[in-house]
Amino acid sequence: MSWNTFGRVLRMTTWGESHGPAIGAVLDGCPPGLALSEADIQPFLDARRPGQSRFTTQRREADEVRILSGVFPDANGSSRTTGTPIQLMIENTDQRSKDYSEIAQTYRPGHADYAYDAKYGLRDHRGGGRSSARETAARVAAGAVARRVIPEVAITAYVREIGGDAIDDAAIDHAEIDANPFFSPDPAAARRWEGLVDEARKAGSSLGAVVECVAIGVPAGWGAPVYAKLDADLAGAMMGINAVKGVEIGEGFQAARLRGEDNADEMRPGEEGKRPAFLANHAGGIAGGIATGQPIVVRVAFKPTSSILIPRRTITSDGEATEVSTRGRHDPCVGIRGTPVVAAMMALVLADHKLLHRAQCGA
Amino acid sequence: MSWNTFGRVLRMTTWGESHGPAIGAVLDGCPPGLALSEADIQPFLDARRPGQSRFTTQRREADEVRILSGVFPDANGSSRTTGTPIQLMIENTDQRSKDYSEIAQTYRPGHADYAYDAKYGLRDHRGGGRSSARETAARVAAGAVARRVIPEVAITAYVREIGGDAIDDAAIDHAEIDANPFFSPDPAAARRWEGLVDEARKAGSSLGAVVECVAIGVPAGWGAPVYAKLDADLAGAMMGINAVKGVEIGEGFQAARLRGEDNADEMRPGEEGKRPAFLANHAGGIAGGIATGQPIVVRVAFKPTSSILIPRRTITSDGEATEVSTRGRHDPCVGIRGTPVVAAMMALVLADHKLLHRAQCGA
Amino acid sequence: MSWNTFGRVLRMTTWGESHGPAIGAVLDGCPPGLALSEADIQPFLDARRPGQSRFTTQRREADEVRILSGVFPDANGSSRTTGTPIQLMIENTDQRSKDYSEIAQTYRPGHADYAYDAKYGLRDHRGGGRSSARETAARVAAGAVARRVIPEVAITAYVREIGGDAIDDAAIDHAEIDANPFFSPDPAAARRWEGLVDEARKAGSSLGAVVECVAIGVPAGWGAPVYAKLDADLAGAMMGINAVKGVEIGEGFQAARLRGEDNADEMRPGEEGKRPAFLANHAGGIAGGIATGQPIVVRVAFKPTSSILIPRRTITSDGEATEVSTRGRHDPCVGIRGTPVVAAMMALVLADHKLLHRAQCGA
Amino acid sequence: MSWNTFGRVLRMTTWGESHGPAIGAVLDGCPPGLALSEADIQPFLDARRPGQSRFTTQRREADEVRILSGVFPDANGSSRTTGTPIQLMIENTDQRSKDYSEIAQTYRPGHADYAYDAKYGLRDHRGGGRSSARETAARVAAGAVARRVIPEVAITAYVREIGGDAIDDAAIDHAEIDANPFFSPDPAAARRWEGLVDEARKAGSSLGAVVECVAIGVPAGWGAPVYAKLDADLAGAMMGINAVKGVEIGEGFQAARLRGEDNADEMRPGEEGKRPAFLANHAGGIAGGIATGQPIVVRVAFKPTSSILIPRRTITSDGEATEVSTRGRHDPCVGIRGTPVVAAMMALVLADHKLLHRAQCGA
Repeated sequence: MSWNTFGRVLRMTTWGESHGPAIGAVLDGCPPGLALSEADIQPFLDARRPGQSRFTTQRREADEVRILSGVFPDANGSSRTTGTPIQLMIENTDQRSKDYSEIAQTYRPGHADYAYDAKYGLRDHRGGGRSSARETAARVAAGAVARRVIPEVAITAYVREIGGDAIDDAAIDHAEIDANPFFSPDPAAARRWEGLVDEARKAGSSLGAVVECVAIGVPAGWGAPVYAKLDADLAGAMMGINAVKGVEIGEGFQAARLRGEDNADEMRPGEEGKRPAFLANHAGGIAGGIATGQPIVVRVAFKPTSSILIPRRTITSDGEATEVSTRGRHDPCVGIRGTPVVAAMMALVLADHKLLHRAQCGA
Repeated sequence: MSWNTFGRVLRMTTWGESHGPAIGAVLDGCPPGLALSEADIQPFLDARRPGQSRFTTQRREADEVRILSGVFPDANGSSRTTGTPIQLMIENTDQRSKDYSEIAQTYRPGHADYAYDAKYGLRDHRGGGRSSARETAARVAAGAVARRVIPEVAITAYVREIGGDAIDDAAIDHAEIDANPFFSPDPAAARRWEGLVDEARKAGSSLGAVVECVAIGVPAGWGAPVYAKLDADLAGAMMGINAVKGVEIGEGFQAARLRGEDNADEMRPGEEGKRPAFLANHAGGIAGGIATGQPIVVRVAFKPTSSILIPRRTITSDGEATEVSTRGRHDPCVGIRGTPVVAAMMALVLADHKLLHRAQCGA
Repeated sequence: MSWNTFGRVLRMTTWGESHGPAIGAVLDGCPPGLALSEADIQPFLDARRPGQSRFTTQRREADEVRILSGVFPDANGSSRTTGTPIQLMIENTDQRSKDYSEIAQTYRPGHADYAYDAKYGLRDHRGGGRSSARETAARVAAGAVARRVIPEVAITAYVREIGGDAIDDAAIDHAEIDANPFFSPDPAAARRWEGLVDEARKAGSSLGAVVECVAIGVPAGWGAPVYAKLDADLAGAMMGINAVKGVEIGEGFQAARLRGEDNADEMRPGEEGKRPAFLANHAGGIAGGIATGQPIVVRVAFKPTSSILIPRRTITSDGEATEVSTRGRHDPCVGIRGTPVVAAMMALVLADHKLLHRAQCGA
Repeated sequence: MSWNTFGRVLRMTTWGESHGPAIGAVLDGCPPGLALSEADIQPFLDARRPGQSRFTTQRREADEVRILSGVFPDANGSSRTTGTPIQLMIENTDQRSKDYSEIAQTYRPGHADYAYDAKYGLRDHRGGGRSSARETAARVAAGAVARRVIPEVAITAYVREIGGDAIDDAAIDHAEIDANPFFSPDPAAARRWEGLVDEARKAGSSLGAVVECVAIGVPAGWGAPVYAKLDADLAGAMMGINAVKGVEIGEGFQAARLRGEDNADEMRPGEEGKRPAFLANHAGGIAGGIATGQPIVVRVAFKPTSSILIPRRTITSDGEATEVSTRGRHDPCVGIRGTPVVAAMMALVLADHKLLHRAQCGA
């Protein structure tokens, strides 16, 4: 089944193929009266935009967003959301579809090509069509709007690890994240990664990455105790990003190696009366599916880019043995440009949960 | 927002508190004509049932399921699904609610108590109420029905690791899983875990676990390319199980440390004509959100049980500092009894996707 | 597709067959903290309960509701909703399933029998199984809870017309509705209907009815402008009641015969400043899918009961020609007992929209 | 709550305001492999297009649809659906937004203006913004695609009645429908309506209409017995069209005036073995929410256009008394151009139910 809508009451529907005329997202259910213009969205798209350093794909897309609906000037002439669907359209401008002619009939290992054909029988193969990571530009645009819905929350995403080389937790400095081409909060790691990624790119290979995202300011109470758990929705959101193979909340897999007394986030009376002061945050800000008021911490594993120059054995759609090396212009490490996408999905999940919480509990 | 329904077209709605009169699940959208009686469901509940060894909680629940609707005898007298909602009810019989009186006003670290109060303002505190892992009995019952929907698929779940002590992959023998109280496929690990879990239980502590689940027989094509990705739905399903903090598909986090050429699942022509023979399964059976036909492999991290005897610092609902040690009867390692729950969620996700695929693609 | 859930954020899932052990509804998404006990629900079920006069079926069901989950005593011992799913169960006690043995293989005209078999291949034929109007008891129970969600709204439903004999609009007195067995707001009509219904019952025939429902107090703003229009949701809700064949809002079909200037609901400044005083309510309280603050008025047409003693020509499930006269115990006019069901569906739709409005607009 | 998505598995999301740059629909869940190009959609838009006779609005919109995603050429170069979301965009070209400046602060009776402001606090008032009937162009485009999903079904819609003047049922000739500007199947009625509509238009008034829609070829079994009843979904779909105030299935309100024996659709053995030959179709092709295989018959009441030149009393957004007469270019009878919209909604509902039925029942 095709299913291109995300969210329960704040609902994003994306559309478009990598090499079609445009891609976009319709964001429905957004509260009215929020200040919103294209200039509020563009910086987030620019952060994800390709071609900004030698460490990302050289496809040159302007990625200019147009808001086609859902905003209107208020009495002061300030563009505001009206509560109707917000159509965000991004035209595709730098397609080199001919790069893809040879893969029309060849299944690239690690890509959805074979599974896609098994499902639908035909596909727009150019650049992966609907399966392209280009679809995530629409998420980033919608995520920028979602941030307007949750002004109380600050979301930060960064790369923790590339090709197995991790940052030093003691060196994390959020101010550094935008100062290097890797979204690294540790400048020393960023310098090491230059070499790593260059080597992989020149070798026609690719590297994986681990991205971490932290949301501060989420009030205790957002979430739900059973099938719309905040952590479950985040896990689904993150695993649904192209190339992601693992998701952790708080301690994640490490929690399975702790004893109960060590994993407990003990509490002391907080400054504001009844609100607790937590002594630890192993839980990553979520207990029983509901936000505790602590920072929400999610980690996401990106596999290495599947599009590589090193030839791999595969078959054609006719079942013949062949080899494929993916030309075209590709990211040597998709996790890097995946970072703003992780932040966007965090924003979309949290905004949806804010509205859900308000629906049931009234505030 | 409360949200107690899981699934898109095969939809499970669970209800009930740990110490109320009963819990249950309504399974809606099930195809008609499937043979189904209580005897088909009970073995799965028995596998999850507490009190079967000293390594699980000593609460003694019969966990007998009653089918209150949705089945009817066919012409041969065989009980079959009718296509209407299947109500599965399990009465609670061994409540010792007084065990919980002292936690009515005390927030247990690691539990949802505080977050829950912040959300709803009041809660049935007895045994965790709706947040209790007892809710997962309803999932296991519904999962047993879901298995009927996907007879082409074989699902196996087992414990890979307890307290950091992992099985030997070379020793995996699925026939061993039900022969020890830990769902261990490696009998040597099971023997080691006896000592580990006994020690933790006697110390009033608890241990975490990693559970792995494999589904064989899923046809290439189930799943969806964007927001109902099979891996995203599995991640949401698994992260939504009580005490889970991490989910991996295939290589999972390890994929982030592989190079592209090593992570590629190369293909050779398969025996049946065009169907490929994969030379590896780093992807865990899912590419671009769609099943490849290879075994689907998911790993899930359970934190150590939060209910422990070792006292932890906390606050009361009035904001006073106190300590809490959770008496009552608890699992020293919730991951063990979580294993049948992981398998049930796998069955529910796959059955839903079978029907979704059929809706759009007709087969 | 089976689809047994109603509502977007306040979601009712019903289950159960007419002659199974029980029927029920799970109501999910209900706000926490609302006073609710079985005594709050029972009067609504009693109003719909069969066997209370000779004008309804003589099946004798106690229709006692049990709340199995979702409520808990607050600090004062008052039973309150907790925000978790509320399971409302009603046991079936007066089944005479043998009455139905002869229709197991015979399709009753006007009933779903043939269509149901064409869909599912098998069915619980006893008393209509899942298609029985008995399912509406679950709606009435859930509707009673929904009324708690919208204390600002007063809902009244009554019969306007039986067998083509209508009430006198000038004689409408809401106080009369519960003083006669027909939910008639016009006592003179009620007296006439005694003779009409008696005649039809004795002749082994049945009569149709028109039911009207008015909701006062709905604030301007509930509803939505496009695909969750308040009138569209009401139309779907009402047409989904067994035996309903038509739905009107405000002037309904008569609006098609008015000129624009006559159908306009003109406005004058209201007492409370900007809120308008409407000079008419042709719109039935809804404009462009959104409540105007005026009374919401819906009319619903019930066909005559399909179960009649007068023999009708039909076929068997083997395709043989036969006749059928439905014995068993039936309402000579289903519209009468449909009246509390109409009110319940109104309550469910309005409560859902209150929460939806609050989700997006915050109040 | 904004809610701009329609359908359960075949889901249409519309977006756009009457005087914004464009409007459109994303159709998600469409089966792959269906032949589809813009030329397949345009004729349906042309039938709804304004400005084609003096009996409709003189706004001149080309209403040219562009398919921005979801189709791709197959091996033969024929454009086919790929199973991904189909974005249908229609640019707005003939806006005269200044016509609307005076109603920015004045609530037009019969329109959503006041209710809309009460809900959202601000709105794009130009031409009704999101509440404009222009939104229905997007439905017609999506409905054209939906027809591709159900080639076994033939859908016909026509006007039965304008301003209280009805067609002669005996004179119905479907071949006449497209031969007059009123979608009338009765040419004599069409001639009478010329005078009626001209008179109303010249008087600055407007007229209502009743539209009927018949779907032939729907197989017995589509639909659902409880909360996705085919008739309930049709009622919601039709009542959700702008200006609709009433919906009937089959006999509709007239069924409330029939006796049970007269309303029964008796059956005789059919030619094809077990399939019945019905002797009547009072049910309008749906019993218990499920298609019987007979023609599906729906009737829809449109109120007279609310935008009229005759001045009506109203208030401003500041609560001041005023009068309004709606200039701009309007249909003297919205029901006429509503006819293709009714057919489109029928197609969308039936296509969705075909896929839902296939999901659960496999064919």
